[in-house]
Amino acid sequence: MRLRNVKNKEEIMNQSTCLIRNPEEYFGKWKQVFSNSHPIYVEIGMGKGQFIIQNALAHPENNYIGIEKYDSVMAKALLKVPEGIPNLKMVRADALSIDKIFDHEINGIYLNFSDPWPKKRHHLRRLSSRVFLEKYDSIFQKEPWIEMRTDNRELFQYSLVSFSSFGYTLEDVSLNLHQDQMPTITTEYEDKFSNKNMPIYFVRCTKVLKTR
Amino acid sequence: MRLRNVKNKEEIMNQSTCLIRNPEEYFGKWKQVFSNSHPIYVEIGMGKGQFIIQNALAHPENNYIGIEKYDSVMAKALLKVPEGIPNLKMVRADALSIDKIFDHEINGIYLNFSDPWPKKRHHLRRLSSRVFLEKYDSIFQKEPWIEMRTDNRELFQYSLVSFSSFGYTLEDVSLNLHQDQMPTITTEYEDKFSNKNMPIYFVRCTKVLKTR
Repeated sequence: MRLRNVKNKEEIMNQSTCLIRNPEEYFGKWKQVFSNSHPIYVEIGMGKGQFIIQNALAHPENNYIGIEKYDSVMAKALLKVPEGIPNLKMVRADALSIDKIFDHEINGIYLNFSDPWPKKRHHLRRLSSRVFLEKYDSIFQKEPWIEMRTDNRELFQYSLVSFSSFGYTLEDVSLNLHQDQMPTITTEYEDKFSNKNMPIYFVRCTKVLKTR
Repeated sequence: MRLRNVKNKEEIMNQSTCLIRNPEEYFGKWKQVFSNSHPIYVEIGMGKGQFIIQNALAHPENNYIGIEKYDSVMAKALLKVPEGIPNLKMVRADALSIDKIFDHEINGIYLNFSDPWPKKRHHLRRLSSRVFLEKYDSIFQKEPWIEMRTDNRELFQYSLVSFSSFGYTLEDVSLNLHQDQMPTITTEYEDKFSNKNMPIYFVRCTKVLKTR
């Protein structure tokens, strides 16, 4: 995500009803945030929010939470959120703190075009490394899924092995998502890469957790 | 594998000391065939045999068995086998009969450029379908591996999901084997595709079996 400073980002964030300012206060209580028991899906690194906003609009039967680390990017996403949409919340946080925010209450995670951290010595910073998979275990309900989309071959190869080694079963794999099944909801990155005819890699995997 | 008839194939097969003519007679007794307890690795669909022959020459500490369905292809492979190589045997058989030939005595299987059976209704004929994975369970020792190489994207995607669903853990995945790690031992197909700069897909997966 290229970072351009958004000058009035503080003002945008302060005025938003979609942004949850103190997410750690809702640890274990996210059903109350949405006032229902619908499944909750999280996108880690939502960028400008196109994917999660469109999902929330298309699926009122689910709840969605977009997580983004950078204020300026968050501000851009918030500007796109339709007024009064009840099933979408946004959280400004680093992915490393996710286990302080959720407690066995998330049903699925989207990892879309995450930072590939190409150097081997940085592999534990990848959102599909065991460092994060351990955290996800602590936020997940008992039969969760992870969906990853990326244009980065090395990240994808690494992630398949990492998911599998951590007890996930691969349910669907595509090495050219837009050739196999043109998605109706896409990310900003996905549109860009797909328009250049670069393949999008996709995996959906599931796990059965023993907790709860 | 394009089939060209080899006129003297019967003669070639009759004269070979590498070819095991009645493999079902050795069910549970393959250690005796090799007169040692070294690991036994099988290539199903070895074609003209380049890969398995080179492996046997490079690794005298392992035993290798090449399986091929067609007489003419088998004859071509046999013509390439160096005289008196002790750790290589060949078996003319259909993969469907593999569980009549071996009994919990195989340590690993190579599936190289297998027939992709592209039509969905034929998917159970693929060598990575559950039909075959069940048979492999019955021929495998307790901690076996499967290695697959293919140029076929659909077969590869299908196989990743099939292996994972059947309890295998992915240990290594490459979507461009010759870019990631140029192998020293290759198949005839692999050379052809690689020379055309077509990507070779690779996966190595392992399983812990409860039997024996």
